[in-house]
Amino acid sequence: MYLCTQIKVNYIKFMAKELDFLTKRSEDYSRWYNELVVKADLAEQSDVRGCMVIKPYGYAIWEKMQRLLDDRFKETGVQNAYFPLLIPKSFLSREAEHVEGFAKECAVVTHYRLKTNDTHDGVVVDPAARLEEELIIRPTSETIIWNTFKNWIHSYRDLPLVVNQWCNVMRWEMRTRLFLRTSEFLWQEGHTAHATREEAEERAKMMLKVYADFAEQVMAVPVVQGVKSETERFAGALDTYTIEAMMQDGKALQSGTSHFLGQNFGRAFDVQFLNKENQAEYAWATSWGVSTRLMGALIMTHSDDNGLVLPPRLAPTQVVIIPIGGKPEQVAAVDAAVAPIMEQLKQMGISVKYDNADNRRPGFKFADYELKGVPVRLVLGARDLENGTVEVMRRDTLEKETRPLEGIAEYVRQLLDDIQQNIYQKAKTYRDAHIYECDNYDEFKARVKDGGFFLCHWDGTAETEAKIKEDTQATIRCVPFGFEQTPGVDMVSGKPSVARVLIARSY
Amino acid sequence: MYLCTQIKVNYIKFMAKELDFLTKRSEDYSRWYNELVVKADLAEQSDVRGCMVIKPYGYAIWEKMQRLLDDRFKETGVQNAYFPLLIPKSFLSREAEHVEGFAKECAVVTHYRLKTNDTHDGVVVDPAARLEEELIIRPTSETIIWNTFKNWIHSYRDLPLVVNQWCNVMRWEMRTRLFLRTSEFLWQEGHTAHATREEAEERAKMMLKVYADFAEQVMAVPVVQGVKSETERFAGALDTYTIEAMMQDGKALQSGTSHFLGQNFGRAFDVQFLNKENQAEYAWATSWGVSTRLMGALIMTHSDDNGLVLPPRLAPTQVVIIPIGGKPEQVAAVDAAVAPIMEQLKQMGISVKYDNADNRRPGFKFADYELKGVPVRLVLGARDLENGTVEVMRRDTLEKETRPLEGIAEYVRQLLDDIQQNIYQKAKTYRDAHIYECDNYDEFKARVKDGGFFLCHWDGTAETEAKIKEDTQATIRCVPFGFEQTPGVDMVSGKPSVARVLIARSY
Repeated sequence: MYLCTQIKVNYIKFMAKELDFLTKRSEDYSRWYNELVVKADLAEQSDVRGCMVIKPYGYAIWEKMQRLLDDRFKETGVQNAYFPLLIPKSFLSREAEHVEGFAKECAVVTHYRLKTNDTHDGVVVDPAARLEEELIIRPTSETIIWNTFKNWIHSYRDLPLVVNQWCNVMRWEMRTRLFLRTSEFLWQEGHTAHATREEAEERAKMMLKVYADFAEQVMAVPVVQGVKSETERFAGALDTYTIEAMMQDGKALQSGTSHFLGQNFGRAFDVQFLNKENQAEYAWATSWGVSTRLMGALIMTHSDDNGLVLPPRLAPTQVVIIPIGGKPEQVAAVDAAVAPIMEQLKQMGISVKYDNADNRRPGFKFADYELKGVPVRLVLGARDLENGTVEVMRRDTLEKETRPLEGIAEYVRQLLDDIQQNIYQKAKTYRDAHIYECDNYDEFKARVKDGGFFLCHWDGTAETEAKIKEDTQATIRCVPFGFEQTPGVDMVSGKPSVARVLIARSY
Repeated sequence: MYLCTQIKVNYIKFMAKELDFLTKRSEDYSRWYNELVVKADLAEQSDVRGCMVIKPYGYAIWEKMQRLLDDRFKETGVQNAYFPLLIPKSFLSREAEHVEGFAKECAVVTHYRLKTNDTHDGVVVDPAARLEEELIIRPTSETIIWNTFKNWIHSYRDLPLVVNQWCNVMRWEMRTRLFLRTSEFLWQEGHTAHATREEAEERAKMMLKVYADFAEQVMAVPVVQGVKSETERFAGALDTYTIEAMMQDGKALQSGTSHFLGQNFGRAFDVQFLNKENQAEYAWATSWGVSTRLMGALIMTHSDDNGLVLPPRLAPTQVVIIPIGGKPEQVAAVDAAVAPIMEQLKQMGISVKYDNADNRRPGFKFADYELKGVPVRLVLGARDLENGTVEVMRRDTLEKETRPLEGIAEYVRQLLDDIQQNIYQKAKTYRDAHIYECDNYDEFKARVKDGGFFLCHWDGTAETEAKIKEDTQATIRCVPFGFEQTPGVDMVSGKPSVARVLIARSY
């Protein structure tokens, strides 16, 4: 067992260095996150202020999210389309509330040409190429899409329209963090038009459920579904539905929103249709979106001090096999034993990588795949072959066990399912243990800074909401659904309250 | 046969109207294209100058292209990533030739904030929010990507880097046409870095082959592969490889390009690596892209005066089944007979739609699905059920035949393959019949305006190239590969020529 022991020593040494290398969550959660995103090769800051580069490993996870979410959208009748990146400035002012919420921090295109400078060593903006009307890089596309819908909608027969686009958007942010808040980000934005209020409200709720199911079943992130307070609504919405996830520091992360927009955009862009009674009506609207922010939720929900923990359904590589080489004939024997296992796993639709590169020591590989969150690791050496065994490590618990080689593919398949369930349960147990009912404002103020979701009675006024935010930085995340409500007394004002709301500090 | 006859009469009437509705190719090819794109619901102009809206039907085709091309990329080791939309103005000047080719017609972001105007009824650009350095919306991303690669590449072990992004880009165009030339368009851009010149050149050629195979096998569009003349090269490239397709008017459409960029960007962005001998070298580069322009190539290669003709591999709906209804019990019988056929087709991976909507007459449906290019149409009525038959129409030839219901799914599957092959062969036969060798400049000038690809000897000078363009508007598309070359005499200058080049008028 010399080889194995030596490797373990190397490994422990390396891991010690590695642990040192990644800040511990308990030391500085925020720094841990920032380091992890960069060190796990997910993303990095670019030289363009506030804009990130999503690196291949991070993008591979986002691509899986996109694909699986898109499939779920299409099952509900969503069609993808593409609308212009640039929006005429005047469009933003059409919907009064919308402009308040969005028009302010935008990238503004004013010119359409550069020219060589006088010293012929660079380029300058050509003052002759000034646009008559400035164009805004879309911060969200309600305005340009409803301006287009005007030409698509004439009769109730043209409805519903249920379209979505996957695209980039831009909101000029002063303080940015990778995935969580960046000036440019990737997202999908769904926009629908309906003949009736009921149908639109149903669609807004339906998409919230699609998001919640996706978060829980695919990302293994438990979420609270609810409806936003008026203050926290999307600019131009009558109702904003939200899913709120709890990070490991107890803060809330708004992970997806779905808006019932009423007839606001129908009116603003004059989108009228003839109903069955041949009368003109304004169309009813919804919009809904999730973004690369989901990457932040994914990372912060599951990962640990060794690095990423990924749900198997989103892991670009689900299984890594690492040989412990010795003499050439031992290496060849391991290669030969691994080939059929690879084949079986691939046939099960499992993505597997055999890392037999000889320029990295096994200990380095172990730490690297842990950092990258590969859910299952198999290690195989000459001694294992003799014994007909293989070492299996699951990333979520870091537990190792020795299993028979016979039937290992089927075992791994089940293990991946088990990991998917386990990390969801773990996150849910943590979340549930940090949801508190609280009826005393002093107690609330003392406790909320340590994180957690607080269920508190609220009198429904913007004044109370503002006071809570000012005193504690915590905000009303939503009026939660699926929670039996009884009337009570607002903890701040002492006025009557019809329901408890979810309050937390948030990202 | 009353029902059937009546339907035929309706159909003929409707088609007459429909044909009237779409300009014939022989009348005005350009107008036919513009009308078809809009009437088949593929795309439309937006209210933002030069930017298009890709409608759901058009986007569904693009999505299939993306998926199938992306699979082919990944087979060659490509990884997707995402880089910023905005590029600092100064980056563009780093590579001298690149700035000449690209910096001129760009959307320029100069400000990052709007504010409410003095009359409180609109928004204006906030002059206080002027950027220190203007940002350009990417016309292509070599500069920002090589600026990023600088941090990723240190040793030969970090190479090759083979990344790609699917994104939007913007080049300010004065005269736009849907899909063919728009200010904003969607594309993929691959960017690779290599340790050796040979490896980079090999990658550039490999991607050209991926594009050519995709065009021919998936889009059913035959292409000529070749290398561009110096004049026609990408700004900053040492070699630009191209695939050129012939449209039905005999004009060339450049459908994809792959560039060998040498060390130009490595030098411009100081991307050096330590080679195996521990010496610093600049990395070697390629880039390659195809865009929504492929939609234009697809439409113009196959479609006819009745509308779109789509290759089955890209058709969003491959088969439509239309019932000819009568009494309710007949309708129910047809519904029952169709269900298992639908099921069988779906199990074969074929996308099928049963259009039993009763608010559109069959004749209208027929014309509409022809316009949309659905490859196979099945029509089924009560009489067919009695006879155990179904009417099958293939969109490419518009041929109809009556087939036994028994085994129809398998027949359709083979028919789809046959259509895929047939439209490729048809396009190739047309293309090959319009490739001419020509050695006389007067003859060339007389004939080139009628379209076609001309294989002519060229002396290799930019002067001759410019003269041909000035005299005829035709350009040297490429030095074609896979064509046995013998030396000759330039048809314009009379000087010696080593090879024939492909000359054509183009989109």
